[in-house]
Amino acid sequence: MVANENSASLNSDKEIFSAKKEEDISNWYSEIIKTAELVDLRYNVKGFVVYQPWAVRTLELMYGFFEKNLQEREHEPYFFPALIPEKNFNLESSHIEGFAPEVFWVTEHGAGEKFDEKLALRPTSETAFYQMFSLWIRSYQDLPFRTYQRAQVWRYETSATRPLLRSREFFWLESHCAFPDKESAFQNVLGDMKTTESVMHQIFGVPFIYFQRPQWDKFPGADNTFGADALTPSGRVVQQPSTHMLGTNFSKPFNVSFVDKEGNSQFAYLTCYGPAISRILASVILTHGDDKGLRFPFEIVPKQIVIVPIAFEKNSLVLEKAKELKSILSSTGFRVELDSSSKRPGEKFYFWEMKGVPIRIELGPKELDSNKLVLFRRDTSEKVSINESELIDKINFLGKAISKNLKDSADEWFSNSIIDVSSYDEIADVVGKGIARCNFCSLELDGESCAEKIEKELFATVRGKRIDKQEKPNGVCVVCEKPAKEVVYIAKQY
Amino acid sequence: MVANENSASLNSDKEIFSAKKEEDISNWYSEIIKTAELVDLRYNVKGFVVYQPWAVRTLELMYGFFEKNLQEREHEPYFFPALIPEKNFNLESSHIEGFAPEVFWVTEHGAGEKFDEKLALRPTSETAFYQMFSLWIRSYQDLPFRTYQRAQVWRYETSATRPLLRSREFFWLESHCAFPDKESAFQNVLGDMKTTESVMHQIFGVPFIYFQRPQWDKFPGADNTFGADALTPSGRVVQQPSTHMLGTNFSKPFNVSFVDKEGNSQFAYLTCYGPAISRILASVILTHGDDKGLRFPFEIVPKQIVIVPIAFEKNSLVLEKAKELKSILSSTGFRVELDSSSKRPGEKFYFWEMKGVPIRIELGPKELDSNKLVLFRRDTSEKVSINESELIDKINFLGKAISKNLKDSADEWFSNSIIDVSSYDEIADVVGKGIARCNFCSLELDGESCAEKIEKELFATVRGKRIDKQEKPNGVCVVCEKPAKEVVYIAKQY
Repeated sequence: MVANENSASLNSDKEIFSAKKEEDISNWYSEIIKTAELVDLRYNVKGFVVYQPWAVRTLELMYGFFEKNLQEREHEPYFFPALIPEKNFNLESSHIEGFAPEVFWVTEHGAGEKFDEKLALRPTSETAFYQMFSLWIRSYQDLPFRTYQRAQVWRYETSATRPLLRSREFFWLESHCAFPDKESAFQNVLGDMKTTESVMHQIFGVPFIYFQRPQWDKFPGADNTFGADALTPSGRVVQQPSTHMLGTNFSKPFNVSFVDKEGNSQFAYLTCYGPAISRILASVILTHGDDKGLRFPFEIVPKQIVIVPIAFEKNSLVLEKAKELKSILSSTGFRVELDSSSKRPGEKFYFWEMKGVPIRIELGPKELDSNKLVLFRRDTSEKVSINESELIDKINFLGKAISKNLKDSADEWFSNSIIDVSSYDEIADVVGKGIARCNFCSLELDGESCAEKIEKELFATVRGKRIDKQEKPNGVCVVCEKPAKEVVYIAKQY
Repeated sequence: MVANENSASLNSDKEIFSAKKEEDISNWYSEIIKTAELVDLRYNVKGFVVYQPWAVRTLELMYGFFEKNLQEREHEPYFFPALIPEKNFNLESSHIEGFAPEVFWVTEHGAGEKFDEKLALRPTSETAFYQMFSLWIRSYQDLPFRTYQRAQVWRYETSATRPLLRSREFFWLESHCAFPDKESAFQNVLGDMKTTESVMHQIFGVPFIYFQRPQWDKFPGADNTFGADALTPSGRVVQQPSTHMLGTNFSKPFNVSFVDKEGNSQFAYLTCYGPAISRILASVILTHGDDKGLRFPFEIVPKQIVIVPIAFEKNSLVLEKAKELKSILSSTGFRVELDSSSKRPGEKFYFWEMKGVPIRIELGPKELDSNKLVLFRRDTSEKVSINESELIDKINFLGKAISKNLKDSADEWFSNSIIDVSSYDEIADVVGKGIARCNFCSLELDGESCAEKIEKELFATVRGKRIDKQEKPNGVCVVCEKPAKEVVYIAKQY
């Protein structure tokens, strides 16, 4: 990979970004997306962007962790068509109602020949998968039946789009599974939550809470929806992977049935789960980035180490040594860049820090003479001089330490952003900075009017109740002051 | 991965397929696609299929080899939008003429709201990439500029579709590159051919010849097209990766220009290359399969080894040993299946042979007592008894030997299928069985009438002249009997 010398004219004498992350997150985000060459917004279809190599390579690594986890949970990979006939959608009424406004429709081909029936560019694939489930699943012996696909989806978003966070085309995985009963389906929903925890939190370092959504805020066609809310530095939540108990809502219209042990025909219980990889990348950038640019956990960065040779133009042994180190580190399995371009070392330092490369190795004539190397940590800006013989051990140690430090910092910030409130007025003080936690009347439909008041007056939404622990309310609803049945979390949504 | 016990009720008492490969390749292919659960044709949009796990896993491995090779050739990965505005297509007139009949058009969204301009579901992405090239490329220092994306494309094929071979949706890689001059662009085209040789032939074992296509059979918008023709057992050729010299045909309308060392503005020379992974899988199946089912090279098969424990229900040590072997082989890096289902061993043998697993390990009480193992080779049906201590070495040896044997057999069959002919009548005897090689007047436009005669009377096409070696004609054109300028190859096309 060759750094484009023209793309970012960084040098140590000026600020990299005009916007500070803490002061102006919106402009900071726009600048880092552009400066690090993650996505290019100049494509000429509104809401569509071009993913550039640094983003594509990161997304591929992120996909890898999710796919590995799903395969360990015995999910099998499929590729389904991108086009779904309109009639499939119409089979489940709340599903079509929910998605119809967002669908891109293919209506013709060639020189304007119309199709008999409109074809949806998939906004999600329940109605594609389940017609095939009805052919594949016959007997209780076929269950559980666990599938996923890696795919793009298209949704005609009418609110303002934002690169990676909300686009009209995004990259995701969607898992669709069938079970013989409600309990085993629910266990799978819990498994989806564990996948999110193991991958998005433990590996990518993005903290979140899984909320059971209020009944008025479910996935169209679901019995219950569980959404992972992460937080942006703007104090707004962003919905990350959601997992849904579809019950038999889809299996009835699509006839996903099986013969049980007693010989009776039954409808299967279906679940679905959809990690949007491109949006998760947005959370990675927003959570870990700083005023120097990107910071990445060691596991998902396209280049883990950059070697910067110093004064190698005057001393050819320096470049030779740098190449030798690159070869040793690459064959150990690390992703390594050697920057022997003609830029000044300071420029290189700033460039690769901006790109989020976790470790830099500096190597000049002085290091060569003493068999030493200087290692620089992107996350803390610490430098340490090591003996060359310790290199692999130190890299392994630092890689783990950097990922842990990013995750720990994010966890601390996230947990400090959750504030208990005991009155309606206090909600207004919290939302927009963090997440308000409070007593609330009900998450069934009788609580909807209180949620609507919050939405209308405070531009915030009731995210639901925690699913990882049971929280008991001890008082009255902060809105209507009726006895509270739930402890809920309220936040502005990105 | 759990074999679906209901999906294929194979047993040793009956033929697996009703059609023999040598006698009825068309039905053999249909049966193997279905029995091995590669793709399901029952999806309810014409020309679209569902890719099942065994095919998806194979495609992923195949993608991996192509991507690794392209990255070694300094191609950087991008993801471009699936939608391309109609106006982009209109900029290059022969390109829109060539592709317009095949385009799926997105014309509306939501409840029938029309777009101002139709959007093409990409049939290929020249007109998406090159508008961005014009923004990214400024100076000679930006060149060469090498990109690729992994993507699906959609083409409204009007001829009969055939799973994997010709579908309205297929999986491919498309590479787009820019160069400062014609010579370096042509070197890249040669590099694309080497990639095809290194991956499709050397690793996947699919032989082919690269032909420079006649001027009347170029990619729409190209100066020259080079197509890799593989052969199907039906004696027809199938076009595999083609690579194109686009010259400045696209860089002019899309303004892909750069400032050269002398400060002058010049148009870049563009090339593109498109390996259709799903169609290459069709060639892998057709080339290597036999009457027992699939045969795969060791490198691209989802499971390389299946362990079948014998009489393990009576002897728990057998199953323990089988698990231990699986663990050893997996941690060595092999893809291993342990089939401890309740099927009879004979059924398991037939099932995994049908799926194309290259090596089977049989392990029963007898082997346990003697520390021996029985290894079975799928390609030759040979069995060999080995000491357990030799296992890893033997697997490594057999893996290579199986891939080599499949490739060598394919090469021999392919080269025997090319027949020299010296008269027009002889062409008819060869095409439909193999590829006819003969003298031909011209591959410029003045040769088109001879090619049309062949197409009309013999239903065969002039594929072009070899690019890997120069062949000198020694006589007259087999059609018009004018002095021959070329040695060409003629075949029926799939």
